[in-house]
Amino acid sequence: MRTLVSTDADFETAFAALLNMKRETDEDVDSQVAAILADVRRRGDAALIEYTARFDRLELNASGLAITADEIEAACASCDPNLLSALELAAARIRAFHHRQIPGDDHFVDDVGVRLGLRWTAVQAAGLYVPGGTAAYPSSVLMNAIPAKAAGVERLVMVVPSPGGRLNPLVLAAARIAGIDEIYRVGGAQAIGALAYGTATIRPVDKIVGPGNAYVAAAKRRVFGTVGIDMIAGPSEILVVADNGNDPGWIAADLLSQAEHDTAAQSILITDDAEFGRRVAQAVDSHLKTLSRAAIARDSWDRHGAVIVVPSLADSVPLIDRIAPEHLELAVAEPEALAARVRNAGAIFLGRFTPEAVGDYVGGPNHVLPTARSARFSSGLGVLDFMKRTSLLGCDAASLRAIGPAAARLAEAEGLSAHGLSVGIRLNLGME
Amino acid sequence: MRTLVSTDADFETAFAALLNMKRETDEDVDSQVAAILADVRRRGDAALIEYTARFDRLELNASGLAITADEIEAACASCDPNLLSALELAAARIRAFHHRQIPGDDHFVDDVGVRLGLRWTAVQAAGLYVPGGTAAYPSSVLMNAIPAKAAGVERLVMVVPSPGGRLNPLVLAAARIAGIDEIYRVGGAQAIGALAYGTATIRPVDKIVGPGNAYVAAAKRRVFGTVGIDMIAGPSEILVVADNGNDPGWIAADLLSQAEHDTAAQSILITDDAEFGRRVAQAVDSHLKTLSRAAIARDSWDRHGAVIVVPSLADSVPLIDRIAPEHLELAVAEPEALAARVRNAGAIFLGRFTPEAVGDYVGGPNHVLPTARSARFSSGLGVLDFMKRTSLLGCDAASLRAIGPAAARLAEAEGLSAHGLSVGIRLNLGME
Repeated sequence: MRTLVSTDADFETAFAALLNMKRETDEDVDSQVAAILADVRRRGDAALIEYTARFDRLELNASGLAITADEIEAACASCDPNLLSALELAAARIRAFHHRQIPGDDHFVDDVGVRLGLRWTAVQAAGLYVPGGTAAYPSSVLMNAIPAKAAGVERLVMVVPSPGGRLNPLVLAAARIAGIDEIYRVGGAQAIGALAYGTATIRPVDKIVGPGNAYVAAAKRRVFGTVGIDMIAGPSEILVVADNGNDPGWIAADLLSQAEHDTAAQSILITDDAEFGRRVAQAVDSHLKTLSRAAIARDSWDRHGAVIVVPSLADSVPLIDRIAPEHLELAVAEPEALAARVRNAGAIFLGRFTPEAVGDYVGGPNHVLPTARSARFSSGLGVLDFMKRTSLLGCDAASLRAIGPAAARLAEAEGLSAHGLSVGIRLNLGME
Repeated sequence: MRTLVSTDADFETAFAALLNMKRETDEDVDSQVAAILADVRRRGDAALIEYTARFDRLELNASGLAITADEIEAACASCDPNLLSALELAAARIRAFHHRQIPGDDHFVDDVGVRLGLRWTAVQAAGLYVPGGTAAYPSSVLMNAIPAKAAGVERLVMVVPSPGGRLNPLVLAAARIAGIDEIYRVGGAQAIGALAYGTATIRPVDKIVGPGNAYVAAAKRRVFGTVGIDMIAGPSEILVVADNGNDPGWIAADLLSQAEHDTAAQSILITDDAEFGRRVAQAVDSHLKTLSRAAIARDSWDRHGAVIVVPSLADSVPLIDRIAPEHLELAVAEPEALAARVRNAGAIFLGRFTPEAVGDYVGGPNHVLPTARSARFSSGLGVLDFMKRTSLLGCDAASLRAIGPAAARLAEAEGLSAHGLSVGIRLNLGME
């Protein structure tokens, strides 16, 4: 962990270094992934089955690719009812928040009689990648699937690897609660290939979302264009802005809640009280003695953590916008006023009683958020990611007479005479 | 040009081949582009000036990179006033259509007292690439710049190469009309590098949009992540659905208005009257005798054009959705009814008096649209492409008590104990 003081002479250098810190390790798996995708495209189910045997140590035939309704039922029955009701609460809150995002169409006739419109429609079929193993988070199933269903996606297909045949029953329970239509026990680049190109068993989708390892990320990049994809997520980040009116132990827990995700995660505290910053750092050390993922969290905090001391909370605003954090926690007396001045953040958590973790599960907003400073130009996952716009334009003879000549003139100026002809021929402008 | 009849036994094979036809030629320029980007990142203006001398045959010093207000003024003064007023009409109509897209924020308190919100903010700075030479279209400047300004982008930066020092005065006039803030006479991968990484003269932006050649497209793909980018556009396409109530010459002109863009463009007619289809094809041949870009248009039509005959217009709907055309023209008696049944299209042109070309210039909707079947999952350029969402979540002690325990329970189930701690410590749940 490093401490930066914004009034120090070398602050700009140290802050720029913090911004440009490279946390992700690039694994070069692209050529392997290209070969797997080409193979799935060519051989379909047969390739999928072979890669599943090789990578997941699971022998299947084509009829075993799909997870059956009975299996899902059995998985749900095996879950702790308290966890199921927590998932139901989370799903209801996520659904309520996302339903408000469904956009309205716009249809109007302008003053020269041109009919205009902008119409939203849902993507017909979407695929959701769910990682296997330790990163198989039921909360991610809800966060990715519920916006798709709210958008009106008719066919939502989940793929999840089951190494050695094992699946997390809570993941299947979350899939059922979210309304997923089909589930296949495949993963890796081969699953992305199946979703993009289709096989005899898995029909292709139009868009693929969801987190995954380096192979999955590389496969998503490669199939982009054939299908849509969501962002490629980087390591998680939190920026907490806190004054000395907070319990240092609470803020320390918040910083650690990102740090425990991944040694490449980054937790930053901005405070207007250097002494408070020191007490938070002490509390971090103290919490680390008891946490189950202490080794990961400690490594993240040591390597990427930072405490930045500013003269006043207002001085945090330009720093926040440059960091453009995935998660921004404003543990201050008047969080709304400070939030209103921030331009770049994926999600903002307001006040002393809103730990970021509550937003990971049950807040309602999405936990799939832009990382690595991309909140400058991108947004968390939402309903609009599963919809697309079609513009509508309608002229009659009179309104074409009103606006057509300008179009024909510009077309000719751009050297596009067939463009001009297509307008002029309807206006009898006698254009060549 | 090929003719397909939907009731023929081999239709599905022929239609699938049409869908999968590869029209784009991949130019492998990626390693060259990587080197140029790295050089601009390292050496800034000096690299930009060297590449401009090499590729654009233009010797500049750093102070000559920016195009001055006087130069823009002089360019506007040299333009045909009729063209300037056509540009002004186009800009006003594009502005009016796009202003309606500005989204509203959402702030509410739910039934357990949690404060929730979704807030839109504009990208702070955006870059617009404008190609030089024959593809320097003033209409594209308007279509890319006006949505950015409508969104509230504060700093809109245009880059445009000026081979041999020459610039299209109408492009500069369009830039002034659209409200662009800075213009630099640089192009190619080096201009994309300057926008993404910044140089002493050109400050970096957050998002880059606009069309370009293979070098520009490769550079945009490479800087994606550092900045946002728009879609990578493929060759243009039109799908016209027309019955025999149309003048074949009008429909032929519409098909040619896409074909003249590029030999890789694709124009398809779907009709319920085979004889009408033949008459359109004859009219295409007739128009080709007089068009200025006949060689390009003929090549596109011969190689990629198609006439598809269906028993009734209703049979066109599933074919439209599979083609997912960039431009869909419905030259039929009841275009709205047919449009309502279409899911996948970038833009729809309604009725017999709405040639697609009117939408390229003065309709109001954007002409930057999804190509290559990507209308299945993506949209034309709009105001939302220059904005991003931030979610807001605020609990007090009481509302955290209502929803926090479920969050803590799910966190523990996912093995994330610091997540659980950050909630539990505020609830005195005594979680470890």
